[in-house]
Amino acid sequence: MNGQQSGGLSALILAAGNGKRMRSKKPKVLCEVLFKPMICWIRDWCLQAGISDQCVVISPEGEEIRGHFPQGTAFAVQQERRGTGHAVMQALDFLKAHAGGDVLVLNGDAPFIDGETIQNALTLHRREQAAITVVTAEVEDPTGYGRIVRSRKNVSAIVEHADADDAIRAIHEINSGTFWFKVDFLMDALSRLGCDNAQGEYYLTDTVKVATRAGARVRAYCSENCDIVLGANDRRGLLKLNEIARRRVFDRLLDAGVNLLSTDGLIVSPDARIEPDTTLYPGVIIKGKTMIGSGCTITSGSVIEDSIIGSSVTVNCSQITRSTVGDGARIGPFSQLRPDSHLAPGVKIGDFVEIKNSTIGEKTSVAHLSYIGDSDVGARCNFGCGVAVANYDGLHKNRCVIGNDAFIGCNTNLVAPVSLGDGAYTAAGSTITEDVPGDALAIARARQVVKPDWSARFRGSRINPEK
Amino acid sequence: MNGQQSGGLSALILAAGNGKRMRSKKPKVLCEVLFKPMICWIRDWCLQAGISDQCVVISPEGEEIRGHFPQGTAFAVQQERRGTGHAVMQALDFLKAHAGGDVLVLNGDAPFIDGETIQNALTLHRREQAAITVVTAEVEDPTGYGRIVRSRKNVSAIVEHADADDAIRAIHEINSGTFWFKVDFLMDALSRLGCDNAQGEYYLTDTVKVATRAGARVRAYCSENCDIVLGANDRRGLLKLNEIARRRVFDRLLDAGVNLLSTDGLIVSPDARIEPDTTLYPGVIIKGKTMIGSGCTITSGSVIEDSIIGSSVTVNCSQITRSTVGDGARIGPFSQLRPDSHLAPGVKIGDFVEIKNSTIGEKTSVAHLSYIGDSDVGARCNFGCGVAVANYDGLHKNRCVIGNDAFIGCNTNLVAPVSLGDGAYTAAGSTITEDVPGDALAIARARQVVKPDWSARFRGSRINPEK
Amino acid sequence: MNGQQSGGLSALILAAGNGKRMRSKKPKVLCEVLFKPMICWIRDWCLQAGISDQCVVISPEGEEIRGHFPQGTAFAVQQERRGTGHAVMQALDFLKAHAGGDVLVLNGDAPFIDGETIQNALTLHRREQAAITVVTAEVEDPTGYGRIVRSRKNVSAIVEHADADDAIRAIHEINSGTFWFKVDFLMDALSRLGCDNAQGEYYLTDTVKVATRAGARVRAYCSENCDIVLGANDRRGLLKLNEIARRRVFDRLLDAGVNLLSTDGLIVSPDARIEPDTTLYPGVIIKGKTMIGSGCTITSGSVIEDSIIGSSVTVNCSQITRSTVGDGARIGPFSQLRPDSHLAPGVKIGDFVEIKNSTIGEKTSVAHLSYIGDSDVGARCNFGCGVAVANYDGLHKNRCVIGNDAFIGCNTNLVAPVSLGDGAYTAAGSTITEDVPGDALAIARARQVVKPDWSARFRGSRINPEK
Repeated sequence: MNGQQSGGLSALILAAGNGKRMRSKKPKVLCEVLFKPMICWIRDWCLQAGISDQCVVISPEGEEIRGHFPQGTAFAVQQERRGTGHAVMQALDFLKAHAGGDVLVLNGDAPFIDGETIQNALTLHRREQAAITVVTAEVEDPTGYGRIVRSRKNVSAIVEHADADDAIRAIHEINSGTFWFKVDFLMDALSRLGCDNAQGEYYLTDTVKVATRAGARVRAYCSENCDIVLGANDRRGLLKLNEIARRRVFDRLLDAGVNLLSTDGLIVSPDARIEPDTTLYPGVIIKGKTMIGSGCTITSGSVIEDSIIGSSVTVNCSQITRSTVGDGARIGPFSQLRPDSHLAPGVKIGDFVEIKNSTIGEKTSVAHLSYIGDSDVGARCNFGCGVAVANYDGLHKNRCVIGNDAFIGCNTNLVAPVSLGDGAYTAAGSTITEDVPGDALAIARARQVVKPDWSARFRGSRINPEK
Repeated sequence: MNGQQSGGLSALILAAGNGKRMRSKKPKVLCEVLFKPMICWIRDWCLQAGISDQCVVISPEGEEIRGHFPQGTAFAVQQERRGTGHAVMQALDFLKAHAGGDVLVLNGDAPFIDGETIQNALTLHRREQAAITVVTAEVEDPTGYGRIVRSRKNVSAIVEHADADDAIRAIHEINSGTFWFKVDFLMDALSRLGCDNAQGEYYLTDTVKVATRAGARVRAYCSENCDIVLGANDRRGLLKLNEIARRRVFDRLLDAGVNLLSTDGLIVSPDARIEPDTTLYPGVIIKGKTMIGSGCTITSGSVIEDSIIGSSVTVNCSQITRSTVGDGARIGPFSQLRPDSHLAPGVKIGDFVEIKNSTIGEKTSVAHLSYIGDSDVGARCNFGCGVAVANYDGLHKNRCVIGNDAFIGCNTNLVAPVSLGDGAYTAAGSTITEDVPGDALAIARARQVVKPDWSARFRGSRINPEK
Repeated sequence: MNGQQSGGLSALILAAGNGKRMRSKKPKVLCEVLFKPMICWIRDWCLQAGISDQCVVISPEGEEIRGHFPQGTAFAVQQERRGTGHAVMQALDFLKAHAGGDVLVLNGDAPFIDGETIQNALTLHRREQAAITVVTAEVEDPTGYGRIVRSRKNVSAIVEHADADDAIRAIHEINSGTFWFKVDFLMDALSRLGCDNAQGEYYLTDTVKVATRAGARVRAYCSENCDIVLGANDRRGLLKLNEIARRRVFDRLLDAGVNLLSTDGLIVSPDARIEPDTTLYPGVIIKGKTMIGSGCTITSGSVIEDSIIGSSVTVNCSQITRSTVGDGARIGPFSQLRPDSHLAPGVKIGDFVEIKNSTIGEKTSVAHLSYIGDSDVGARCNFGCGVAVANYDGLHKNRCVIGNDAFIGCNTNLVAPVSLGDGAYTAAGSTITEDVPGDALAIARARQVVKPDWSARFRGSRINPEK
């Protein structure tokens, strides 16, 4: 484990739940909200609060979770599901390494905690020199949640709904499942937890009793963000989290001056950044860390993922993945930029065009029904209809290089590797297998022959026309 | 009429309403809810309740309805619209053939009756030896519906809203329009119906009076499914039925562990079956008897109709009709499988690809801008960009056969009928008109000629470049 | 200024607001509702009420607005923002030219005024010989709006919310911001307005005080359309206007017998006309003055703009702009008609087809992956897959002419300008550079050569296959 500092801050994320009620083969915390696994929301909120030193408690079936965290993240495996307290016990080595510090313990399936809440709770936790600071929220309907019983500044108990009497059920301040602990207190308290209850489980909330018994301070930080308590246990709950997250992103976009015609079917990643005066149609999907400049128009059916789009760009019912698009470019309808496509400003990509792992120079036009793969194309080129870069010969992938101001005729095949110089021209219907010098014409096709009356005879006699 | 058994069960579906308020040329019962004509919902609910012996009362303009029922279904034509009682009278031959049995009478434009309600009502009907058992529901707002007046176990009257006094209007149990009748009683009662009312029509509900007068039992079965009373008279009503039906399907999908990001624009057929852990994006449309396996991802803009999709399949903004797709196949974006396409497991169909009436072997890749029609393609083949099967010569459609491990170069034309052996290779830009043996290369193109400086001169002198 | 008649009707549209809170570079009144700039709603409502003589007050940054009005429209530029009264003062020349008449003054950013309200208010205004007639509405929540204080038939004051006491705040009749003025009164009143208030602005509503002082009549016309008061100041407000406008259009469509499966993501222009029995899927976008006949099916992802579509047409996830489509045509999925495409009845356009500036004759089929630009195509032609019209040679655009009953083989290039006669036939893979007579076959390709075992050797030795 690197990056750990004795006495510093760390986070312990509980992620051993399975997806049984989700009916998913994936670990529950990998269920996605706005295309982002729930646990990645937690990971990022902790990072935003300045806590990069993280430990994740996973189940034996949760190995897939490791791939979502950076090198150096600690993992502990909980072999049996014996409660939240038991889960934290599995991370004892991590806690020992952080003795003297404070650790944030939180659930991997409650994605709406936020960095500000984490920080504010820490401020309170340290100022009050608390052993435990529980993060709480006041909600209208607390049914089902653990109630926060306060005694002046102290939290005297967290009472589960099932165990609560009427007086306690009337309390609207509830446990969010997120806690700051003094690490040293937590290690000691874990050793004192019992499992003498109906389920035979160790509950993390029982640390409050330990603290109370020991006269240690337990504080509550009540967040203004009520959504922090929300988690998902089944597909219905997950759908609700998605709906809430969508609305929150929309609010942010509208405040930022983004033009939304209707939010129906619109899904925008929480990590996307969109400049003012850009219009998103309904049904647009923006995934991942996409950035979109100002004055763009993105129409229905477009899907943009982890890409950087300039200003005044039009994306018309097209898909863009891990690519960059320069200012003023126009794309679509019905086109695709596959990963590592880089379009300079002013490029025009028309309909039924695929670009893959290629750079396209300024103001080049690829208007229709073409495929450009593994190629470097210059500025101001014109691609006719039906151009194909034959970048794969069945064994190897090769690159094409095309200079500036080239003209590629319709249904040209460019058999990679091949280079075209500046101002080169290929005749329609040519298959180009050798380099074409600048300003030269390359032609590779047969001359036209006309057979008079052939067609009339064919229709009459039904000969085979193509042989 | 076949399949009829004296004393058995049968159903009489009233479908003579016109689509006037729908402003449709089609008979009203053919208006669709989730892409399924309303009368087909009724047909299938009856089948689910075990009643395959059906008679449909249509109007002279309703001939189109016949096509939606299997061979052996009985039809009666109601020449004039003179009420529900009159409609049933037209089916007298059908009733006579079912003397001694029980007949379900229901409306063809109230699609949310259900098989369980039909069966439960029958159980009550038979146990009570009722002449009539009316299917009812208790609704919050009964305005406009006929009220069920009970006298102990018996139904003493069904009073139309217009005819009801305040006491009767306070009744919330209403007539759904679905009835079980003893056939013999019904035939007798029909002969006693009068049309001595404002509209001069024969009302089926007047059979209750006949029964009461005769001392025969009338029972009511109150269904827990309140939607059974819902019908549509105009486009607004039809839209509402669609909304209700969509929500019901979504509930079922969520319970089954299907992952819905947002239900906006999502429409799933009531007859579709989707396995857990499959994700449907907003804006997906699933029609007919489609089956989709587990772990699939179906993205916005996809339309799948009457198809069978395996597990772990990706369908990205593509359309699939009456086809099958094997496990692990990836399709799209922007592709189409037309009827009778059969993709083996692991097939990759990229962008701008149309497959029609063809089989594609395991792990074959058709990555971009290609058309494969009327062909049988082996496993592990690679299709370059722009491949066209010329399956039509203006007179006939012909098939192509391609072996395993073939490589089809970019912009190849395969002029059907033509065969390529295992491991055959076609050069980019070739038009293949003759069979290619296994492991052979077929090439059909001119050699490349380069004309130096031609392009520079062309740009200067504006000669015609292509002639 | 033309078309003006002393003593006639005219309209003064206040459009000098900026888009600051919209965070838009465009003038605020150009923000769009259902793809129509707000000020164009006003322009059209005035025209519908018979007022073609219009003057628009713009800001120095609002020059772009001029392009949205016909020749002959008057414009006045308000150099500083000093209130609505000051805005009207800028149009003094326009008012002078209309002395003796009545002028409608209204805001350019409240798009839901309507022609009937304008006309009814004018009728009242003239009948009552009012100096001012303010158009009002009664709303549930008048917070923030100016209240209408009536004294019998007269309006004695319009009191801004901020200045209102409790008694006046209890008034629910509010100022919509639309007024009829006697032009002569208005000119006089403007000269009497002061700016002796907190903001130092001239308020148009202060003309009511001028009238009251002068004993002139001020009347109020209370519209039944409450939406007339709605405007948008920010993106959230604009989204709301879009939602309201969408619902209004849907209501009209449903009444007209249009079949809507779900309104999610559906956006239909207020200027579109759609016949009964046509089905719109969710996610369809209809822009501008589009007309669609009866019995059509328009599926999700389709975008139709300023086009005329016949009856019984299918548009399947395709885009159509400024084009016409004849009865019974079928288009898509995934095709595009660019401007000036004209399809005769019965045309079939399949998938991945672009048509641009071309006419296509009756029953012609362009089934897949083709581009037809700048061409005139006859009836009953068949285009194979991958046909490209090479209409651009890098310098000029040229046209192709194709007769009736022609057959264009797969991957044919038609190098424009070129003509094909009736019944002409091109062989698959041919590049056609010279005219083809009627009933002739044109062929331009190399013969196929087969190299046995080449492919097997290639896979073994990894030679370059294409050179």
